[in-house]
Amino acid sequence: MDPAEWEYAAYQLGLRAVYVLVLLTLAWTLSSWAASVVRATLTRVKFDETLTLFLSTLMRWTILLLAALSCLSYFGVQTTSFAALIGAAGLAIGLAFQGTLSNFAAGAMLLIFRPYKVGDTVNVASYTGKVAEIELFTTAIDTSDNRRIIVPNSSIFGAVIENITYHAVRRADVNVGTGYADDIDQTRAVLEAAVRSVADVVATPAPEVILTDLGASSVNWQVRGWAKRESFGAAKQAIIRAVKLGLDEARISIPFPQLDLHLDPPGPE
Amino acid sequence: MDPAEWEYAAYQLGLRAVYVLVLLTLAWTLSSWAASVVRATLTRVKFDETLTLFLSTLMRWTILLLAALSCLSYFGVQTTSFAALIGAAGLAIGLAFQGTLSNFAAGAMLLIFRPYKVGDTVNVASYTGKVAEIELFTTAIDTSDNRRIIVPNSSIFGAVIENITYHAVRRADVNVGTGYADDIDQTRAVLEAAVRSVADVVATPAPEVILTDLGASSVNWQVRGWAKRESFGAAKQAIIRAVKLGLDEARISIPFPQLDLHLDPPGPE
Amino acid sequence: MDPAEWEYAAYQLGLRAVYVLVLLTLAWTLSSWAASVVRATLTRVKFDETLTLFLSTLMRWTILLLAALSCLSYFGVQTTSFAALIGAAGLAIGLAFQGTLSNFAAGAMLLIFRPYKVGDTVNVASYTGKVAEIELFTTAIDTSDNRRIIVPNSSIFGAVIENITYHAVRRADVNVGTGYADDIDQTRAVLEAAVRSVADVVATPAPEVILTDLGASSVNWQVRGWAKRESFGAAKQAIIRAVKLGLDEARISIPFPQLDLHLDPPGPE
Amino acid sequence: MDPAEWEYAAYQLGLRAVYVLVLLTLAWTLSSWAASVVRATLTRVKFDETLTLFLSTLMRWTILLLAALSCLSYFGVQTTSFAALIGAAGLAIGLAFQGTLSNFAAGAMLLIFRPYKVGDTVNVASYTGKVAEIELFTTAIDTSDNRRIIVPNSSIFGAVIENITYHAVRRADVNVGTGYADDIDQTRAVLEAAVRSVADVVATPAPEVILTDLGASSVNWQVRGWAKRESFGAAKQAIIRAVKLGLDEARISIPFPQLDLHLDPPGPE
Amino acid sequence: MDPAEWEYAAYQLGLRAVYVLVLLTLAWTLSSWAASVVRATLTRVKFDETLTLFLSTLMRWTILLLAALSCLSYFGVQTTSFAALIGAAGLAIGLAFQGTLSNFAAGAMLLIFRPYKVGDTVNVASYTGKVAEIELFTTAIDTSDNRRIIVPNSSIFGAVIENITYHAVRRADVNVGTGYADDIDQTRAVLEAAVRSVADVVATPAPEVILTDLGASSVNWQVRGWAKRESFGAAKQAIIRAVKLGLDEARISIPFPQLDLHLDPPGPE
Amino acid sequence: MDPAEWEYAAYQLGLRAVYVLVLLTLAWTLSSWAASVVRATLTRVKFDETLTLFLSTLMRWTILLLAALSCLSYFGVQTTSFAALIGAAGLAIGLAFQGTLSNFAAGAMLLIFRPYKVGDTVNVASYTGKVAEIELFTTAIDTSDNRRIIVPNSSIFGAVIENITYHAVRRADVNVGTGYADDIDQTRAVLEAAVRSVADVVATPAPEVILTDLGASSVNWQVRGWAKRESFGAAKQAIIRAVKLGLDEARISIPFPQLDLHLDPPGPE
Amino acid sequence: MDPAEWEYAAYQLGLRAVYVLVLLTLAWTLSSWAASVVRATLTRVKFDETLTLFLSTLMRWTILLLAALSCLSYFGVQTTSFAALIGAAGLAIGLAFQGTLSNFAAGAMLLIFRPYKVGDTVNVASYTGKVAEIELFTTAIDTSDNRRIIVPNSSIFGAVIENITYHAVRRADVNVGTGYADDIDQTRAVLEAAVRSVADVVATPAPEVILTDLGASSVNWQVRGWAKRESFGAAKQAIIRAVKLGLDEARISIPFPQLDLHLDPPGPE
Repeated sequence: MDPAEWEYAAYQLGLRAVYVLVLLTLAWTLSSWAASVVRATLTRVKFDETLTLFLSTLMRWTILLLAALSCLSYFGVQTTSFAALIGAAGLAIGLAFQGTLSNFAAGAMLLIFRPYKVGDTVNVASYTGKVAEIELFTTAIDTSDNRRIIVPNSSIFGAVIENITYHAVRRADVNVGTGYADDIDQTRAVLEAAVRSVADVVATPAPEVILTDLGASSVNWQVRGWAKRESFGAAKQAIIRAVKLGLDEARISIPFPQLDLHLDPPGPE
Repeated sequence: MDPAEWEYAAYQLGLRAVYVLVLLTLAWTLSSWAASVVRATLTRVKFDETLTLFLSTLMRWTILLLAALSCLSYFGVQTTSFAALIGAAGLAIGLAFQGTLSNFAAGAMLLIFRPYKVGDTVNVASYTGKVAEIELFTTAIDTSDNRRIIVPNSSIFGAVIENITYHAVRRADVNVGTGYADDIDQTRAVLEAAVRSVADVVATPAPEVILTDLGASSVNWQVRGWAKRESFGAAKQAIIRAVKLGLDEARISIPFPQLDLHLDPPGPE
Repeated sequence: MDPAEWEYAAYQLGLRAVYVLVLLTLAWTLSSWAASVVRATLTRVKFDETLTLFLSTLMRWTILLLAALSCLSYFGVQTTSFAALIGAAGLAIGLAFQGTLSNFAAGAMLLIFRPYKVGDTVNVASYTGKVAEIELFTTAIDTSDNRRIIVPNSSIFGAVIENITYHAVRRADVNVGTGYADDIDQTRAVLEAAVRSVADVVATPAPEVILTDLGASSVNWQVRGWAKRESFGAAKQAIIRAVKLGLDEARISIPFPQLDLHLDPPGPE
Repeated sequence: MDPAEWEYAAYQLGLRAVYVLVLLTLAWTLSSWAASVVRATLTRVKFDETLTLFLSTLMRWTILLLAALSCLSYFGVQTTSFAALIGAAGLAIGLAFQGTLSNFAAGAMLLIFRPYKVGDTVNVASYTGKVAEIELFTTAIDTSDNRRIIVPNSSIFGAVIENITYHAVRRADVNVGTGYADDIDQTRAVLEAAVRSVADVVATPAPEVILTDLGASSVNWQVRGWAKRESFGAAKQAIIRAVKLGLDEARISIPFPQLDLHLDPPGPE
Repeated sequence: MDPAEWEYAAYQLGLRAVYVLVLLTLAWTLSSWAASVVRATLTRVKFDETLTLFLSTLMRWTILLLAALSCLSYFGVQTTSFAALIGAAGLAIGLAFQGTLSNFAAGAMLLIFRPYKVGDTVNVASYTGKVAEIELFTTAIDTSDNRRIIVPNSSIFGAVIENITYHAVRRADVNVGTGYADDIDQTRAVLEAAVRSVADVVATPAPEVILTDLGASSVNWQVRGWAKRESFGAAKQAIIRAVKLGLDEARISIPFPQLDLHLDPPGPE
Repeated sequence: MDPAEWEYAAYQLGLRAVYVLVLLTLAWTLSSWAASVVRATLTRVKFDETLTLFLSTLMRWTILLLAALSCLSYFGVQTTSFAALIGAAGLAIGLAFQGTLSNFAAGAMLLIFRPYKVGDTVNVASYTGKVAEIELFTTAIDTSDNRRIIVPNSSIFGAVIENITYHAVRRADVNVGTGYADDIDQTRAVLEAAVRSVADVVATPAPEVILTDLGASSVNWQVRGWAKRESFGAAKQAIIRAVKLGLDEARISIPFPQLDLHLDPPGPE
Repeated sequence: MDPAEWEYAAYQLGLRAVYVLVLLTLAWTLSSWAASVVRATLTRVKFDETLTLFLSTLMRWTILLLAALSCLSYFGVQTTSFAALIGAAGLAIGLAFQGTLSNFAAGAMLLIFRPYKVGDTVNVASYTGKVAEIELFTTAIDTSDNRRIIVPNSSIFGAVIENITYHAVRRADVNVGTGYADDIDQTRAVLEAAVRSVADVVATPAPEVILTDLGASSVNWQVRGWAKRESFGAAKQAIIRAVKLGLDEARISIPFPQLDLHLDPPGPE
């Protein structure tokens, strides 16, 4: 090989080295800028500090790694295998964090659509309680007996949310059975008087008395009274008390379980 | 290297710089246009505002990122690794938002096929209530005792929807058991008379009395009367009352649970 | 650079511009044609109108987008990243619409294999009712008490379908228990006479009386009679009535639950 | 540009046009041939007609589409994006038809391994009945009371198959409880005599009487007799009858539920 | 274009045609060889015949298809789209046959690790029976009452396998309750004597009598005796008999359910 | 071929060999450095030693394998197939370790968000106990009866976490039923006095007495008292004792199950 | 074409043939070396022999196949389709063996973290027993009545592991109910004396007597004593015995189920 060729090869190599230096410098600058943007943005929205640090560092190293791979390709190294490795690793990480990321996705939806707010009483994931905190991955709920329940957001947004205190008035339902010998129309009148007599029961919507079915031991009723959200518990107890006192006064029985007994019927001998 | 070569290299570089400037300008214009189209369209269909802003910003940055990647390739940088990273990230995001997007897909189907409308009484995801709002991701339902139920649309369109008030007339079923000593044909006549006597029960379809089975303690019947959608509750209570009064009048018993008792049969002694 | 080179560059650019114009014109024509073919075909098979419009518009824009991407590649822009983005977006959409598309797939199979037809009484997804409408995504069923049930097709074709009215004759099964003191052979004779006496019970296949087991309180039998599809309900009621009357007449007891009682056996004292 | 260059460009274009014409002609021929081969093959194996038509048309259009895409690449259009779109669409279709295709896969396995044949009595997917038809996607079963059950093949091959009539003899099990006061060895002798006395019970394998446990109200036994597949039902009824008559004759009691009662023990007062 | 160019083009085409012919010939030879190798190997390991034929034919056509695609690329046809189609089709087939192939994978593991062998009594997929056949996709089990159960291998290897006859001696457990008035230490002595008196109960490991709890109606015990695998059933029956006779002889009661009854306590009147 | 050509080919080969040597040397240095960085980092965060060794070795071999593949491409070997193999293997490994990696992902979230700390009493995965150790893949819990429970982290972070000792005061709930004949207002007064008399019950939040419903045999109450986390158990026992003593003293009954008995009502004879 | 061109073509072909020969020779050497390394490594860690043979053979053939594909690309054959086929096949195999490989992954984690060791008594996958063998895919457990349970490792590491014998002392809990008429404080004293009198109960942690609730028929207690791991069973039986004798001696009753009976209350007549 003559000198000109050597010179050309050296020139090629040198040119590429310059390219690489320029590229790496740009990548370094870009990665610093991107990391600080990520950090600033996440800090502004009050994201978790550890995660913010992790994500901005991740951003910087991803950019640097991609820049390094690009440099390799300048020297004729085929990067298809690297791409396959990145793809497979990304997939594995995606599968591993699928649950975690679903919680994040659901958390974002909860923050946008706000089906409940802090302080609401909700029934989610079969726990009932007051919402204490809504966070990106989880929602914290305090039960009425003060246990702290931490529910992953994907169990909330991906399932049915029951917001109990959404409406200003709620209905309290009291079930009671009366004797088969008691008069149906009189019973209805007594029960209606009882529920109307309760102070916490509002007039509109009107209370109702429902004849539900002919049970095994009693004729069954449901007494329904509407009360304000705040006085729901008191109203329900007052209705139970009024029903009990009303039926006692009218001498309408609340029967125990009943049994018809046949003594020594013709047996097997 | 002689000046001509340097000149050529510079020319190449310059040409590419021009290309890149043109490309970035075009991309900037395109991204602004696309973002405003997205915003206008979504605003027109009354989409959620936060999401509209988010989606139009996402559209703009996606176009700019792709343009930037394209520029890189002008300088000989292989973008296969970038593509792999985009693919893997897209997959991870797709998996994370799978649940959320399924709700959107189901919401779109609900808006197109409308298996129920606001105000219908439905039974979905094992909750029964009146449909209050149909939204893109969720459907809100109010139960009869005024709890607000928020059901994800994919739990609705992906499962069985029971639309209770779809038809104008509904059938009220009342179960009752009569004594083994009572006459079957007389009982049927009494029950038929009872259900026909109820004002809210329509004549067509005709009411029916079904002999269901020979139970442990009683012969079991089901009394079926048809009523208009609005008067269904009242009709059902009236049938129960008519059945009870009819059987009492005809002296047909409604037996309690029965037990045959054998006192001190030959025991182990 | 000398004029010739500039000229050549301009010529290259011009040539590509011509190519691009030709390509876009062709793509526009093709997309219009494809959209109208889709619209015509779907309209012919009475597809939903909104979806037809959506799909034909989607078809047109997909073709235009692909054409635009192809034009980019004429100017040396690498489209691997675009391809990755299209792939990832397609995957996310595929995952999001997986449930919806499964319903479509199942709907197509239902229309091809027709395991039931409108008017059949079926039991699918644990609901029993008459098939009211078979559509591409859902099947509508009316229960016997007139609730409208909308079942997604993938819950039908992917699970067990029970077609109750497929065969012209069906068997009605009546369970009854007789006393331990009653004669087994006489009981069988009485039950066989009872089921044969029912007018709606067909002669072939012959009715059967099955001795099922020695139960806790009674010897248990199952009386089986075959009836025409239309008179199945009436036949079953008639068999119950005939069995009750037959056993009463033959003085064979239908025992209540039994209990042997030992009073004050030697206790812990 | 001088004429020679124009000529060359035209020549290039012309050459490619010829290539494209040749390619499309070949593709058309190939697609016709492939479609007719598919149609012929599927018709020979008695595949569903609608599906056969669909699949052969699909085959033809797939080949034509691929040919058209290949032509595009002759004119320098990069087809990576098209490939990504085909891949994503294929994935979405694959996910949507996953359930349907699984049934097909299971159907193929059923036809190859034949764990049951038409006429066998099987218990699959918790339904018991006689196999009526084995098809590619589903298996049809008729229950003993003549309901038609259509079970998807993947619910059969992917779960446990219980082939009840696989073996020529089956065992009939009869459970019975005897009194605590009765002699254990005598009871065993009586029960063994009873089961041996039944005509339909075969001698080999020998019938067995198993003492299962000391129950709450009785000493529990299981009487086991083997019978031919066709006379299984009759044999079981005959064993029940023989056991009842044998115990009655030997004056061994079959006790009702037992209860020891303590009247007014020292209470809370 | 001058003749030399035409000649060159023709030469190019001819050269490629020769290449293609060579390639196709090689592919044909290779495919025949591969198919026969597959057939020979699978026949040697006694694989199912239909599947063997199918797999060797599949092998041959896959090689030929790949060869044909390679030929296309000789004429400048880009095969990326074909690759995408092959990938998507492969994915769809992979998803469809996922269940079937899992059974195969589990079958291979069963054949390598052999957690049970033909003749063992096992409890898998909630069925108990004797292993009749271990095949590649399924395991066949015969229940003790001679129903043939076909369990997919992935339901076996992917779940808990209970091999009941793995060990040479097994423990038979008999539960019994004694009266609250009976002496605890005497009862233990009687039960220990009873279990030791049974011939089939081995001396080592020693039998045990466990006082399990103070039940609602009785003091509860578990009598445990060890027996050889083959005499397990007989031993268990013998222990039950010995316990019953031993307690009777020692006049220790086996109480029925107990109830303390308070007649007419101060009621609601 | 003349010598110059041979020389050129040799030169090409030599140049590539030099490239390969340089590349492999760099890869070796890089892999050693990366492995030691991984080892140092993981050791610093006290990662498991075996896993640290495994991961740093894996890192080194991955880099060397990629370098080797890159060398192959210098000699004109197409590495697309290798990339496909790496992708498929990565996917298979990702699927196989999906469960394991999910535990790791959940463990990381637990360490960042710390919904509980060592020593807290929690209810996770339906086990209640004291947290003993929080590790990367699992959390160890000791139940109150000293069984060690090892819960995979993905079963914790992916489900509901119930942190019982999160709040300083908890509520103890005691259910009790009183007779239908007893005065409701007096009962409430007695129960309130009882719960207030308990020393461990704090004054704020105030104790409550709730009338829950009219039960089958009794009027049902729930007595609720708040206690400090440490004295919760003692407080609950003290409330039960105070309720029992209070009701006894006030002669309010705690009724047993009730039954109304009808002797020999008109029977079937 | 002139001879020089033919010569050049031949030279090209020859050169490639030499390349191919060199490549195949290298691949053969490499594959032999890799296979023997695999075999040696797996044999050293005592891997299953059949699997070792299979994996080393698989390694050899994979390398040879990749080498063969690389040779193809020397002759201008595009291998993208081959890569797609390899990818799809790898995916299908990955899906099929997903369950099996998960077991392996879990097995590796079990061997690294060792949450239990051979001989521990554990409760996994709802089976309780002594760990007999820990293998790569499964863990074998022997129940206390000597059934061999083979649990797949992914059912162990992916679920809750309950290690019963992890701690040196365990708590034995005995539930007992006493009469409503008995004195609460005296009962507590008697129960505490009883549990302290048992020899196997250790002094620290101290035994406890817990008043659990006011039950339907009795006041319920839980007696808790701590014992050494080895004497746990004996201690529990001794506590039951001591409680029974202690209560008998103090004349505190252990009541049977209670029932208040009202004879012939005002009925429906």
